[in-house]
This record gives sequence, C-alpha cells and structure tokens, in this order.
Amino acid sequence: MTDSRTLYVDVTAATMVAGQVPYGLIPKAAIAVEGERIVWVGPEADLPQSFHDAPRQSFGGRLVTPGLIDCHTHVVHGGDRAAEFEMRLEGASYEEVARAGGGIVSTVKATRAADEAALLASALPRVDALLAEGICTLEIKSGYGLDSETELRMLRAARRIAQDRPVRVRTTFLGAHAVPAEYGGRADAYIDEVCIPALRAAHDEGLVDAVDAFCEEIAFSPEQVGRVFDAARELGLPVKIHAEQLSDLGGAIMAARHGALSADHIEYLDKAGVAALAEAGTVTVILPGAFYTIRETQAPPIEGLRAAGVPMAVATDCNPGSSPMTSLLLAMNMACTLFRMTPEEALAGTTRNAAAALGLTDCGTIEAGMRADLAIWDIAQPAELSYRIGFNPLHARIFAGKAPAC
Amino acid sequence: MTDSRTLYVDVTAATMVAGQVPYGLIPKAAIAVEGERIVWVGPEADLPQSFHDAPRQSFGGRLVTPGLIDCHTHVVHGGDRAAEFEMRLEGASYEEVARAGGGIVSTVKATRAADEAALLASALPRVDALLAEGICTLEIKSGYGLDSETELRMLRAARRIAQDRPVRVRTTFLGAHAVPAEYGGRADAYIDEVCIPALRAAHDEGLVDAVDAFCEEIAFSPEQVGRVFDAARELGLPVKIHAEQLSDLGGAIMAARHGALSADHIEYLDKAGVAALAEAGTVTVILPGAFYTIRETQAPPIEGLRAAGVPMAVATDCNPGSSPMTSLLLAMNMACTLFRMTPEEALAGTTRNAAAALGLTDCGTIEAGMRADLAIWDIAQPAELSYRIGFNPLHARIFAGKAPAC
Ligand SMILES: [Zn+2]
Ligand SMILES: [Zn+2]
Repeated sequence: MTDSRTLYVDVTAATMVAGQVPYGLIPKAAIAVEGERIVWVGPEADLPQSFHDAPRQSFGGRLVTPGLIDCHTHVVHGGDRAAEFEMRLEGASYEEVARAGGGIVSTVKATRAADEAALLASALPRVDALLAEGICTLEIKSGYGLDSETELRMLRAARRIAQDRPVRVRTTFLGAHAVPAEYGGRADAYIDEVCIPALRAAHDEGLVDAVDAFCEEIAFSPEQVGRVFDAARELGLPVKIHAEQLSDLGGAIMAARHGALSADHIEYLDKAGVAALAEAGTVTVILPGAFYTIRETQAPPIEGLRAAGVPMAVATDCNPGSSPMTSLLLAMNMACTLFRMTPEEALAGTTRNAAAALGLTDCGTIEAGMRADLAIWDIAQPAELSYRIGFNPLHARIFAGKAPAC
Repeated sequence: MTDSRTLYVDVTAATMVAGQVPYGLIPKAAIAVEGERIVWVGPEADLPQSFHDAPRQSFGGRLVTPGLIDCHTHVVHGGDRAAEFEMRLEGASYEEVARAGGGIVSTVKATRAADEAALLASALPRVDALLAEGICTLEIKSGYGLDSETELRMLRAARRIAQDRPVRVRTTFLGAHAVPAEYGGRADAYIDEVCIPALRAAHDEGLVDAVDAFCEEIAFSPEQVGRVFDAARELGLPVKIHAEQLSDLGGAIMAARHGALSADHIEYLDKAGVAALAEAGTVTVILPGAFYTIRETQAPPIEGLRAAGVPMAVATDCNPGSSPMTSLLLAMNMACTLFRMTPEEALAGTTRNAAAALGLTDCGTIEAGMRADLAIWDIAQPAELSYRIGFNPLHARIFAGKAPAC
C-alpha cells in the first residue's frame, strides 16, 4: 500500500478533537493518509520515521479542518417555492398562497411528478454548492412524497448522488413529515396505512440509514411519532426528530426516550427537555436558516444546552420552503450571529457533532483511524469560517483520501 | 465595427426598465451589442433586419439581467475582525474587546500598516466573490485611513482593482468615517485639519467620484458633515451619507438639502426624512448585512419609502466590522426576508437604483445606449435571485460587451 500513502505537511490542523485545546488545533502539523484513512496526525516535528519517505504534499501553512458534514437536509425535492416567496412579499395572505397551490403541498405535487432522474438532476446544483464549501458527508431526507412510491424514489435519488459526486450520503426516511391532502384529518390512518408500510418497503430495499419525523401541531403528535419510532426499532434503525420548532409538544423528550440520535430545531425546548437530551446523549441539531427565513423570534436554548453538555450540531436544513439555503458556512455564521454560538461550537457543529447526529464514528475529527475527509482553507484562523458572510475560502477538499476537482 | 457586433438570442430579459411590466420582462428576447454598448433589445420576433447577419450567441432560454451593481462597499481595508467576532461570542464585553485593540481602531491600524499592493491583494478575493455573482460595477469607499496618506492609498488601491479585474470601480472619499484616536474629542479639528485637506488632495489626484460621511453620535454631527459637503460642492463632487443607522440625527434631511445622490442605512429615518428624500430625488441604500450582523431591531421604513416613491438600492456594505459580507445575492435575500422588500424591488436595488445611487446613467437597465454589462443566470424566474440563500446561479457575466472567464 506504499503507493497510496500521502503525507500532508505545512498545515495548521483544526483537528476538532474535544479537549483543552481550542479547535484541537495543532500548528505546523503533518497528516499521514493511507488509502481512505488518516493513519497519523501531529506536529510535523514528531512525525514517526516510518512516514518520512511517504510522498509529501504541502499546503503552504493553510488551515485544515475535518471535511464538513451537513447533517440535516431536504436537498432532494421537486420544484421550488420562489413564486410563493414573491407572492408573500407582495402582500398575499397565507390563504391566497394556499389557494394558488403554495406551501408544502406544492412541493409534494412537484416531487410526485418528478422521476428519479429529474429529482437527481435538480438536486445536483444544490449538492455542488455544498461540496464547494468542503462538505464530505451529506444527510438527505425523504418526506415530500408522502406516498410509498415517491418516498422510495426520493431515497433512491439521494443514494445516486453519492455515485455521481464524491460525497458520502446518509439517507433518512421522513414519511412522517406532513399529512398529505388525501389523508386530511386522518393522520393516524396515514401513519398506519402509508408511513410505516413505506418505511418497511424502503428498509427492505436497503434505502434507510435513519428514521425521522416532524412532531408539531401542524404535523404529527408525539404519540403518532412514537408509533413510527417503534416500527424503526423493529427494523433496527436509529431515529431522529424535528421537534419543538414552533411550540413545545414534548417531542424531544419522547425522542430521547427512544434513544434518538438527534433532536432538530428545538427552539422551544424547555429545561426538562434539555435534561432529557443530556441524559440520553441525544445530539441537538441547530437550524438557523429556518429560524431566519420564517422570522422566528424564539432562539434555541443554547446556554442551557452548553451548560448541560448536550452536543450541538449545525445544518442547513436545505429545503424549498423554510430554508432554501445551500451554504453550511452561512448556517455557521447564523448560528453565531443569531443564536450566539461560538465559532468553535459552530465548527464542532458541522464536524464532530454532525457526525454524532448521524451516528457516524469514522468522521468529524482529524485523528488516526478516521476517514481522510479534509477541507483545506485559505484562512489563518478557524473563526473566519463563521465570521465571514457569503464568502467561501475553500482551497481544496479531500474526500476519502482523494482530492477531487471541486 | 461589424466584427464587434454580437446578437444574444434565446434569452428571457429582465430589462429592469421601470414601467408596467414586472422586471421589465421580455420573454424570447434578443439583445444586440456593438462594442461596449447595447444597441437594441426587444422580442426576437421584432429584430430589425439590420441585425439579422450579426454573429449570434444563444443563451438557451436563460434569464438575463443587467450586470449587478454593489453601490456601497468598504471592500478595501487591512486585516479582518474574526478574532473580535470570536471574543464577543465567547462573552467578552465591549470594553474587553476595546482593550484588546478591537473595533474600528484595529482596522485603521491594519489599513495604515498595509501598502497599496497589500491593500489590493487582500481586497481581490472579496472582489472575486462579488464578480462571481454577476457584479459589473462596484463602489469602494476610503475611510479606514483617517489620515491623508492612507485615505489616498485606499483610493489608489480601489482604482487598481479595475485594472486587475474586469469591473468598473467608483471610488468614494469617506474621510469623515470616524474620529481617529489622535483627534479624540476633537472631531471639528479632524474635519478641518485632516478630512477636508485630504479630500482636496485626493481630488487633485483624480481619485474621487463622490464624497461620503458617517453621520451618527459615535461619528460626526450633521453640521460637521455639512462642512465636508460644502468642500465637496466647491470641488464639483456629488455627496452621499451614512445616516440614521443607529439613531435619528436628521442627517438624511441635511444630505437631501445638499442634493445627495444617496442616503444609506436609514433604519431610523422618520416621515419628514422620507419626504425630504422624495423631494430631493435622493436614493436610499438599504444595507441589511449590517442590520443582521449588529442585531438591530428597527428596520428601515420600507413601506413609507415605497409609498413616497423614494428609489431603494440594496448593497453589501462589505466591511470587516459590521458586515463582512461578500454576497450581493444574500443582501437581496436579507432585504426581502428581514425588511419585506419584494424580489423585484431587491433586483431594482442592485441594478437600476444602484446605478442612480452612484449617479450613473449608463448602466442598471438593459436598454439601447446602455453599457453591455449583463448577468446570465441558470434560473427560470427573477424572484429566484432573492429566494435562495447562499446559492449562486450565475451562468456567465458580460462586462462592457465582453464575456470574461469568471
Ligand atoms: Zn428539516
Ligand atoms: Zn458603510
């Protein structure tokens, strides 16, 4: 395997290994890679003799971080909602928008109408925007089909992204995203007749890495979500939840009881909810793009989460309605500016903690044994990643030990 | 000149010509260019015979808008403020940040320490980010020198950007940006001894297209700014103002009396101010990046400006402290999301009205006689430019009739 070795030298490594050193920073570092894995990282002066003859590549003193991880997206969907965005700003009421076919209904309609190739083709420009910012792992949810056929097609399209682009994709089944029109007022029937059977079918096809649900007055109750989670457990699948975004239904506490990987949004999470997540080791996923877009005023309880030691991830929530955002760096800036997370927390949120939100243990830090997913930046200090707004300082991206053109 | 003619066909042209048609939209349009100028635009079916033999380029049905104009930036400056951003988020007080050398003082220090080449080199990545979004005209202010030598050096660096990159640069003298430490408590003396003499020196060197000032308690009073404006009038230079950002000092009304091209920020502008701007034909420049970054809560009076027919421009305010933003598309999204401007107003704000804010009459719309500065986009409807967050759909940029690689 000598020929697959590379030694990256002259880098400042923000390893994001938790501990006393901010960002796990190693100045004048070297990173040794064999095949798809990191085999050694440390100060270049301490490099073991056995790596001295490996082919070297210098990064000219640049900052290296783990490849970024966007752990919550709906990047696969049909259509867009630009016309609705415009109607609202021109003064249309919610009723007028709804009469014009707007809202999630329009995305469900467009997604059902799109075949797998069309779903893939429309997602790729959004995916490319994310990869251009150093993303190496991307979570993608279903949830705009709301029928078995379309939910599975969304997941197949999501999986194909990892064939067309150098990125790892984790797919999440989100059948319990909304009650479709044909089940209006019959959410329980939808869960039993469509959602859970679709989940089983998707799992049979090997399309599901995790199961998610939207727990909110306008979507599903904790009890309904609990039934989906029970079905997930039967299948051996981990669960996550959209909870406490618009109100506090106790969804996060319910999810914690199910050992959820993550509870996402959580603007309205109360103290008992924070304690439950801390106890369960559930990660929170902070989604400032949606907060910003729908002009929410209640910020998630960052100080409480910090005090309780609950890991915080940060993601784009890329979706056509409440967060048409394709910049994870901007999500980091918003997490700092709007929610007062620190730049170090924001970067942990798109590396180490984002990996945890996906149940991944082989990425998110720069350590021996981890995947060689790296982002190399034209900046001097990691805080610049969160500080700038609408600027992409990526110099290169290394995915599984390889530097693709991006 | 036959060889310098180009006919762009198969485009949807958002001409941004004011009138009854939203966006001045022309479907199935053709745009004829000769040299640096547009010579004809209209439905392709109406193309005059004389253009039928011109070399054709098809844009495959894409949307074309005027090249964008960022009419308010501080893109030339030394250093950055990422460390200060991080300190604040880690809980440091304003006093602690100041003791650590933060605030505008740190940018003045870094700018004074940077030679012209360094100022140019540090600005270019930010400029490149803007050009990648279709910007063809860029306003750049001085104001971090606060001594004659550095103010002029900033303006020289700004002018050099137009030699290094295919973009038109308009330079604005902003000596009255802040009172430098050496004139602490002696703002009047700074105006008389430094600011006005520096303005005259910069004008002697041909470096000044307009004169700006920051009218605020923490900067200069309307009376002090008025003295700078009087000096500008003597030199035959147009004026603009940073006013009513943090409080209402009546700066915009004073500027309107001076026939100002624009009044910028204006969150605290009152009804009398709106009326004064309408009367004077002064453009307002809406700067949501600063509002967002400093977490202001008072939005500018968009409805009042709209009702009074005051033109609204939108700009990045790209600066290292209150708006480290290098995405004009994001400024448009923020103008819509945070201030409830419509997508059409946002696009007028970065084309037609941005030109007016700079006193330019040869760009900002797609019309015969205008410069052939065009942006071609991979989108179907102009509202998408404001709708998406952190996404750049630019397909190509045409600057003065030429399509540079960008
Ligand atoms: Zn979501
Ligand atoms: Zn400014």
